[in-house]
Amino acid sequence: MGGSILTDLATQIVIPVCAVIGIIFSLLQWFIVSQVKLSPEAAAQQSSKNNKNGYNDYLIEEEEGLNDHNVVIKCAEIQQAISEEKFLYQFKVGSHFLPLHGISVRRYLHDHLCSPYFRLSWVCGRLQHESQPCTYTKGAICKSALANALFSTISFVLGGITSVVSGFLGMKIATYANARTTLEARKGVGKAFITAFRSGAVMGFLLAANGLLVLYITINLFKLYYGDDWEGLFEAITGYGLGGSSMALFGRVGGGIYTKAADVGADLVGKIERNIPEDDPRNPAVIADNVGDNVGDIAGMGSDLFGSYAEASCAALVVASISSFGINHQFTAMLYPLLISSVGIIVCLITTLFATDFFEIKAVKEIEPALKKQLIISTVLMTIGIALVTWLALPSSFTIFNFGEQKVVKNWELFFCVAIGLWAGLVIGFVTEYYTSNAYSPVQDVADSCRTGAATNVIFGLALGYKSVIIPIFAIAVGIFVSFSLAAMYGIAVAALGMLSTIATGLAIDAYGPISDNAGGIAEMAGMSHRIRERTDALDAAGNTTAAIGKGFAIGSAALVSLALFGAFVSRAAIATVDVLTPKVFIGLLVGAMLPYWFSAMTMKSVGSAALKMVEEVRRQFNTIPGLMEGTAKPDYATCVKISTDASIKEMIPPGALVMLTPLIVGTFFGVETLSGVLAGALVSGVQVAISASNTGGAWDNAKKYIEAGASEHARTLGPKGSDPHKAAVIGDTIGDPLKDTSGPSLNILIKLMAVESLVFAPFFATHGGLLFKLFGKS
Amino acid sequence: MGGSILTDLATQIVIPVCAVIGIIFSLLQWFIVSQVKLSPEAAAQQSSKNNKNGYNDYLIEEEEGLNDHNVVIKCAEIQQAISEEKFLYQFKVGSHFLPLHGISVRRYLHDHLCSPYFRLSWVCGRLQHESQPCTYTKGAICKSALANALFSTISFVLGGITSVVSGFLGMKIATYANARTTLEARKGVGKAFITAFRSGAVMGFLLAANGLLVLYITINLFKLYYGDDWEGLFEAITGYGLGGSSMALFGRVGGGIYTKAADVGADLVGKIERNIPEDDPRNPAVIADNVGDNVGDIAGMGSDLFGSYAEASCAALVVASISSFGINHQFTAMLYPLLISSVGIIVCLITTLFATDFFEIKAVKEIEPALKKQLIISTVLMTIGIALVTWLALPSSFTIFNFGEQKVVKNWELFFCVAIGLWAGLVIGFVTEYYTSNAYSPVQDVADSCRTGAATNVIFGLALGYKSVIIPIFAIAVGIFVSFSLAAMYGIAVAALGMLSTIATGLAIDAYGPISDNAGGIAEMAGMSHRIRERTDALDAAGNTTAAIGKGFAIGSAALVSLALFGAFVSRAAIATVDVLTPKVFIGLLVGAMLPYWFSAMTMKSVGSAALKMVEEVRRQFNTIPGLMEGTAKPDYATCVKISTDASIKEMIPPGALVMLTPLIVGTFFGVETLSGVLAGALVSGVQVAISASNTGGAWDNAKKYIEAGASEHARTLGPKGSDPHKAAVIGDTIGDPLKDTSGPSLNILIKLMAVESLVFAPFFATHGGLLFKLFGKS
Repeated sequence: MGGSILTDLATQIVIPVCAVIGIIFSLLQWFIVSQVKLSPEAAAQQSSKNNKNGYNDYLIEEEEGLNDHNVVIKCAEIQQAISEEKFLYQFKVGSHFLPLHGISVRRYLHDHLCSPYFRLSWVCGRLQHESQPCTYTKGAICKSALANALFSTISFVLGGITSVVSGFLGMKIATYANARTTLEARKGVGKAFITAFRSGAVMGFLLAANGLLVLYITINLFKLYYGDDWEGLFEAITGYGLGGSSMALFGRVGGGIYTKAADVGADLVGKIERNIPEDDPRNPAVIADNVGDNVGDIAGMGSDLFGSYAEASCAALVVASISSFGINHQFTAMLYPLLISSVGIIVCLITTLFATDFFEIKAVKEIEPALKKQLIISTVLMTIGIALVTWLALPSSFTIFNFGEQKVVKNWELFFCVAIGLWAGLVIGFVTEYYTSNAYSPVQDVADSCRTGAATNVIFGLALGYKSVIIPIFAIAVGIFVSFSLAAMYGIAVAALGMLSTIATGLAIDAYGPISDNAGGIAEMAGMSHRIRERTDALDAAGNTTAAIGKGFAIGSAALVSLALFGAFVSRAAIATVDVLTPKVFIGLLVGAMLPYWFSAMTMKSVGSAALKMVEEVRRQFNTIPGLMEGTAKPDYATCVKISTDASIKEMIPPGALVMLTPLIVGTFFGVETLSGVLAGALVSGVQVAISASNTGGAWDNAKKYIEAGASEHARTLGPKGSDPHKAAVIGDTIGDPLKDTSGPSLNILIKLMAVESLVFAPFFATHGGLLFKLFGKS
Repeated sequence: MGGSILTDLATQIVIPVCAVIGIIFSLLQWFIVSQVKLSPEAAAQQSSKNNKNGYNDYLIEEEEGLNDHNVVIKCAEIQQAISEEKFLYQFKVGSHFLPLHGISVRRYLHDHLCSPYFRLSWVCGRLQHESQPCTYTKGAICKSALANALFSTISFVLGGITSVVSGFLGMKIATYANARTTLEARKGVGKAFITAFRSGAVMGFLLAANGLLVLYITINLFKLYYGDDWEGLFEAITGYGLGGSSMALFGRVGGGIYTKAADVGADLVGKIERNIPEDDPRNPAVIADNVGDNVGDIAGMGSDLFGSYAEASCAALVVASISSFGINHQFTAMLYPLLISSVGIIVCLITTLFATDFFEIKAVKEIEPALKKQLIISTVLMTIGIALVTWLALPSSFTIFNFGEQKVVKNWELFFCVAIGLWAGLVIGFVTEYYTSNAYSPVQDVADSCRTGAATNVIFGLALGYKSVIIPIFAIAVGIFVSFSLAAMYGIAVAALGMLSTIATGLAIDAYGPISDNAGGIAEMAGMSHRIRERTDALDAAGNTTAAIGKGFAIGSAALVSLALFGAFVSRAAIATVDVLTPKVFIGLLVGAMLPYWFSAMTMKSVGSAALKMVEEVRRQFNTIPGLMEGTAKPDYATCVKISTDASIKEMIPPGALVMLTPLIVGTFFGVETLSGVLAGALVSGVQVAISASNTGGAWDNAKKYIEAGASEHARTLGPKGSDPHKAAVIGDTIGDPLKDTSGPSLNILIKLMAVESLVFAPFFATHGGLLFKLFGKS
């Protein structure tokens, strides 16, 4: 049970240095992307007003022979349309006021309901101002409950702010990079890819590094007060995880409704009724659609993964504090989770260089392999990194808190826990890619089924989604089994961290998706040459796949995080076993397994009704604004943006209420055993629904793109755009939109937030819950 | 702990009398239906060849002014087409050779693998020819393992044969009744309804009464050998349940693939490519489609419900035999499950009279209320019946075997167990009706969403299916909680029996569906007047709803039965707890929850590929048979029937293998704890998938019918046939076909068969299973 090789001082240096390196690297990428606006003297030929953004500066170096005056004028017009993105920024501010507002509401709730103050005052019967005996470390004296309440509120706010700021910056760079990617597409697919990827990396590194840095600083500041009271310190830190994941409710659910209301609404009128192309600037909802891509995929995904990351770290820290690390005051070993994340940033940095500097993409078909290489390189390097950190930071043997007992664990066993999480993530990524990329037979089969119409397309797509669940579930199951067996709930938490250790790369390739999507939109709106649109379409198709991969990671890590939180809840509620053979647990399991369906029904319906409102507004504009179809008048983009914004806020309430109220109602009326069942049921059922929904949607989207691109003999027999098979594919794509971008990913939030909320209320439920059973004398 | 009021002699009389009454009533209904062929002298005007079946005899009494010579000739032609139903009969024989063949295969397996002989010889290390000490009744001597093996094989075969014979007779009456219902529709909707309903009742009563009678006789015959060895007797009887439910694999999965391959194949070419109406005799797949309706809905549903009924009875009997009933030799109390079923037959008989004799339907809109009344009346009467049986047959207090302990139960507590199952069934029925009938807003909303195309139709339909899960799950959860708390696994088993006690009525209204569907088809094929087709369409729309209700009952009872079997498995494997907080169980839960997706992916893909084969054949016939489109040449119906038959047999193998192999692999390599997790996970997840799939499909079907019928102002704005909203509705209907008739209902089989198979192998797994964990020293 010796100490760590790495000294505490070294740990105190390594973590912030890695975080700062991540932030600097991120800013460097941003700087490189911003360099795309070259030749200001050329842009000077344009009106000085347009010149400010310098988007179309590159036009004079255009290689495609399009740099005549007409195209320049056209581009100026598009730029005008894009400058309507002011609305975008306005929205962004608004949408971030929403979470900020959310913070205040939730902080209030937290202060008055969720904080340890309330919990403990319940338990102890009075408000504790004074120091108290520690719960786990026998004989020691810990800080007062009031202090814990105060500090966990602070960390809650910090977690929320970090999530929102990272998401905000991510959206800023994404919208900043769209047009630049389009312009770079003129130079070749490689340049465009690098621009989009760098922009994604800004988001990824900012989020990972900020998350780590803020957590690190918070721990050190709290330490000034708490001293050696690790139990109190890390209990206060858990607020950080809750804060981060609460924001995800807004980002994922609200963002998901926002983006798909705009997307579906724009497509239904534009593509189907008016027969104008996707992303046509005449469509009033087109800006809302572009904004939505950023809101849903960038901010939503970012807040989701950040929440998982923060919760996994906090769960691991809490367990560490009541294990031998905390008892023996081994600071370095306790910060093992942060050290893994630190190494992760460096590994991802090196990995990014493979995509942006070491190799260059020359052809469209190299895009997906390049992204896949990112996954492989980061995983392999990270495995070495984990081994190193484990060797340096952990004593060779230690004990881990395991449902009331202490379990002896060797350091190499913990290496396996982290590594299995990491590699499970890779497997999920690859399987997702296989099922959603149009380079492989599953999507091609779906595309082929469009031959016999939309119905077979939907049947094959649903079957594909169901099938795509199999291997990821086995991967998660193996990860859970190994880490659970080796190191109990600490093992699960670090396995989740292992999966999330390459979060910077994961987010980079995920954010790459909507950036490419919007770049394609801008190319379409600018009426750029066929060749350029082919390039942006190829980038976009790869982006759909990476978005699906990102969703796979997100749900996989959400499953692990929820399980870790579930374990913490059970420990805290002092339940010895969660026995399926008791009626209380079994009905919990059954009802819990139903919740993802209820939740999905709500979110899908929300998208449906918001989209119908959007349809009415778009129709109204087409009917009442003269010259809109002819392109002589401008649509009212702002109203459409407002509809999406309002709908996302309003429609988020019922699913949000389901998530927040279920643990409260079940815990209060049915008690902790039933609540355990509900959490387990929602977890095992939600994972399946989420994976199948996001893969089905991704497959339909890429089946459509496969037909449109017509890259193979087979694809050409199905196309071109406007053919019957293509029309069937468009229907599948539209159905897939809410599945893959709203219902599916939102389920991560369902399972995570229910678990963390149960954890917070566990002591209350354990003491006062189960009213119904008490009433009927069945407790 | 006194005795029962009802003497053993009375019990021995009541049960067979009720069963025989059921059979006589069923034959009476058949006789009444057969009376439809009136006026043979009129038919004599037709060619003597056509005359044999007498289907169109009623033509001369036609009230619609269509009884001119042309129509008679037309009808003669249709009759010719219908007489191709010889193929139908041939198929039926074939399809029943298949199960019979299945029996021999399974009997072989059973003899060599599953029988207690094998199990016990494993446990004991040698083959037991001699009497042995009883397992549960201490000190008593029970019959030899060899005897148990022999007798359980006999009961297995009897269970299988009963299922097949009942299904065969059901299909026979269904095809016999189709044309008669069409003819009766000429007299009015009430007459047609009664004919269809009576025919359904034949199936329902035959199955319920036969099942009861054979079980009763088997028990009494076995008793001659076993005497007072109740434990051995009822262990041998469990084979009956296994036999019945094994047939369901063929009926449900194979039948589901058969019917939808034909249906989807016929629609894709006929309706979409060739633009000929549904059920047009020129379509070569039309007969296969009609046959399929009977195979899937009548034989499949019948075998599924029969399996549940037999398994629930056997599970209850086994628990009773090792409870105080068996220990104290209280024969009447032990046969409580059979007494409930006996009363159920009488209750259903009275209920049927309400539909056929006490009231008459006069308008189309009275059809659904009449069917709903059937559910209410049977449930209310049955509640009284249960109270009566419970009071008469049970001692006021007794003990029930509960995972190794004996639990004291009062007779009124058992009344609540049965009643809650019964009423949970009613709730499920009503909710299903609400979500799938086009008389209510959910389906109307789905129909309305067709306005904006197929995509929104699918989105709203999926959301509807998800939403429709909520209340049934709560109903099942309440049922499980109450019966589990009051009387452990015996409570669950009798709750399932309570839900199935009105099986005769349930099956009658379920079988009514395909009969009406085919009646509509015949009307279409005969080119009957618009008014008559409106009537048959209304019957059919109500039939879709009742089919969905039947599926709701089937999945609800399957959930209860699986849970009872799961409990028996756990007892038998001697597992004390199934703790979610152990890695072995948790990964089982996670993987188990995935199995329904895997299984659904297989069955949907099977329908897809079988339908594509059908499409090719239908296209080939249209292209190569001259005069087919003009109606001058006849299609080759037989080849299409053969394609469906072959596909159903071939495509059934992978999903069948998944069901049969999963428990073997998990039990052998991962052990009983993981297997418990898998069973629980598959159960809680499968129920959701099954309910949502069958309700989504039912809703789409009725949304289409809602538009076609145009009965309201709203519906007329969406129609008529051929409008864009109608086309969108047809797409939804086609997608729903495999969901509601193949994937969804097949999941019942998945959860039931896995549970019963695990039960059979439990002792082996408990002793020799978990090889992988043993290998790594983690057992």
